[in-house]
Amino acid sequence: MTDLKLVGLCGSLRRDSWNRVLLRAAADAFGPADFTEGNLRLPLYDGDLEAEGMPSEVTALKELVAGADAVIIACPEYNKAPPGVLKNALDWLSRGGHPWAGKPVAIVSASAGRAGGERTQFALRLMMVAFRPYLLQGPEVLVANPSEAFNADGALQDERGAGLLAELMEDLRNAALARRS
Amino acid sequence: MTDLKLVGLCGSLRRDSWNRVLLRAAADAFGPADFTEGNLRLPLYDGDLEAEGMPSEVTALKELVAGADAVIIACPEYNKAPPGVLKNALDWLSRGGHPWAGKPVAIVSASAGRAGGERTQFALRLMMVAFRPYLLQGPEVLVANPSEAFNADGALQDERGAGLLAELMEDLRNAALARRS
Amino acid sequence: MTDLKLVGLCGSLRRDSWNRVLLRAAADAFGPADFTEGNLRLPLYDGDLEAEGMPSEVTALKELVAGADAVIIACPEYNKAPPGVLKNALDWLSRGGHPWAGKPVAIVSASAGRAGGERTQFALRLMMVAFRPYLLQGPEVLVANPSEAFNADGALQDERGAGLLAELMEDLRNAALARRS
Amino acid sequence: MTDLKLVGLCGSLRRDSWNRVLLRAAADAFGPADFTEGNLRLPLYDGDLEAEGMPSEVTALKELVAGADAVIIACPEYNKAPPGVLKNALDWLSRGGHPWAGKPVAIVSASAGRAGGERTQFALRLMMVAFRPYLLQGPEVLVANPSEAFNADGALQDERGAGLLAELMEDLRNAALARRS
Repeated sequence: MTDLKLVGLCGSLRRDSWNRVLLRAAADAFGPADFTEGNLRLPLYDGDLEAEGMPSEVTALKELVAGADAVIIACPEYNKAPPGVLKNALDWLSRGGHPWAGKPVAIVSASAGRAGGERTQFALRLMMVAFRPYLLQGPEVLVANPSEAFNADGALQDERGAGLLAELMEDLRNAALARRS
Repeated sequence: MTDLKLVGLCGSLRRDSWNRVLLRAAADAFGPADFTEGNLRLPLYDGDLEAEGMPSEVTALKELVAGADAVIIACPEYNKAPPGVLKNALDWLSRGGHPWAGKPVAIVSASAGRAGGERTQFALRLMMVAFRPYLLQGPEVLVANPSEAFNADGALQDERGAGLLAELMEDLRNAALARRS
Repeated sequence: MTDLKLVGLCGSLRRDSWNRVLLRAAADAFGPADFTEGNLRLPLYDGDLEAEGMPSEVTALKELVAGADAVIIACPEYNKAPPGVLKNALDWLSRGGHPWAGKPVAIVSASAGRAGGERTQFALRLMMVAFRPYLLQGPEVLVANPSEAFNADGALQDERGAGLLAELMEDLRNAALARRS
Repeated sequence: MTDLKLVGLCGSLRRDSWNRVLLRAAADAFGPADFTEGNLRLPLYDGDLEAEGMPSEVTALKELVAGADAVIIACPEYNKAPPGVLKNALDWLSRGGHPWAGKPVAIVSASAGRAGGERTQFALRLMMVAFRPYLLQGPEVLVANPSEAFNADGALQDERGAGLLAELMEDLRNAALARRS
């Protein structure tokens, strides 16, 4: 079964973001799938704008997530919490019927410093509760000092970290397969 | 001393947002001051954009906050947490030297439902820790069911709530005055 | 299938605790099961005491949880967070191999005031992450003003609240059955 | 002014706890003071027990904190959060009039692993909000891998860490002095 639809959301817009590198490493570890990265370049959420009709980028992102068999969120830590960019996307996605119910979702993070995003993951976890996705509890994949963490192919160099990522992605794949069947 | 500079940040962009009504009620309760609401219509934070030079709206907001004697943040609860709009502003403000150190700051929230934003306030509080502002611990001003909470003049109808807001704003004013002297 | 083993943990030791009333209402809503309330009257966690051998009350509680098909935690809100009593039990249970992996768990709360324990539930949720239980994401059952919330039979009077509890317990039952099969 | 009363609370009961070592290093960095460690070996909080009269150990701890010019809390991370032992003490202290209002308080943590207690500090911070102490926002003192962090005299070996502790303690001392005057 290689036609699983895997969607990735990266909380950083920077082209060379370490979280995007991590997102791709996660997608690789997930195994054969049709992988698409969602576009988080949305307008700032504004109820008045919404009243004029859902922006097309929002509709596109919502359809992408709704059609996914599994979602990976790569979440930087900005000021000890998820980026506004990511939360803004979650805010839009929550409007007019959200696409998360029962959806298999895994969180990963890369963050400068030694903790790798412990706090951003906890905060993101709470932001997702209301959507009642099938949010994997773990293992936590927290990539510290990301500028030294990946090899030239974009894979995690640290064996333990790579093993945790593999485990998380295997669980995500299994959850996606179970939901399809 | 009536020339205190008071800055308000409203986490909702909607024109008729209840949090903006609350922000103004807070500014009224603060007493005589030069009150300005900051503009949170910033670009989405993007490290590549930042590398091209700080956007002028960001610079303007940072100067506004830096020059404030006190700041009030009116924070909606979107998906149990602060709006991406507000976090995006905090993310930009944290770049290139943030303006928060020691700054007197008070948080208030209005949120549909009965709890009035308990969780958004907790989450926002943690997002501010790294900046080390002088963040008032309380009393918590949590406006539930905001569509019924204000009178025609935009003041809180509930005596207890109005009293808490008055207390919080008095503490904020005193902190601002103490810092000036 | 009526031989499901259901275990309840009540974060309050008070005999007439509203959380115990809620725990029993939850067990009733769960349906036919062998229900046992775990005993949280444990010693304070102390690594030196642990080094002398696991206290018998801890072993008993751990075996009870390990043997459960599903667990309900009724969690008061003390100072915006779970009681020390409950956390102390979680701390002991985490030692020497915890019993939570994959275990279906539901959280409910009763708390004086209008929010019903929003913050204690969020904090408890984070305390459980490391154990990787099958922790139901919702619906959240938050009983406000508990002294007026139950009828003489200990059932929730509010129809909406009772419906949410029934939904949560049905999901818990289904998770327990799925895990057995 | 060397007669400042400094109180330390250690969230671990283990005799050779690294958090106790850290607590003493913090007290040393605080400078001349009358330092006492509070006794957290309290009964489990139980409303029925409280109804019979406040236990003498609780009264003693409350008086100790009430009389302190400043308090340092050394907080381990058990299961990503403060120990039940510490929360149980906070729960008792909150009963019958708590001793925290306006009190200068600093949090430090030592925790196995690389992050040094980031999550336990965040959780503890939220548990203290309702008490409205003068809780220092930072700098955060997070001692990772504590078994290698201290020298034979119990001082932090890492220069940066020692500097942060010195800064935090200087701020705590200044807050204590300001409150006295």
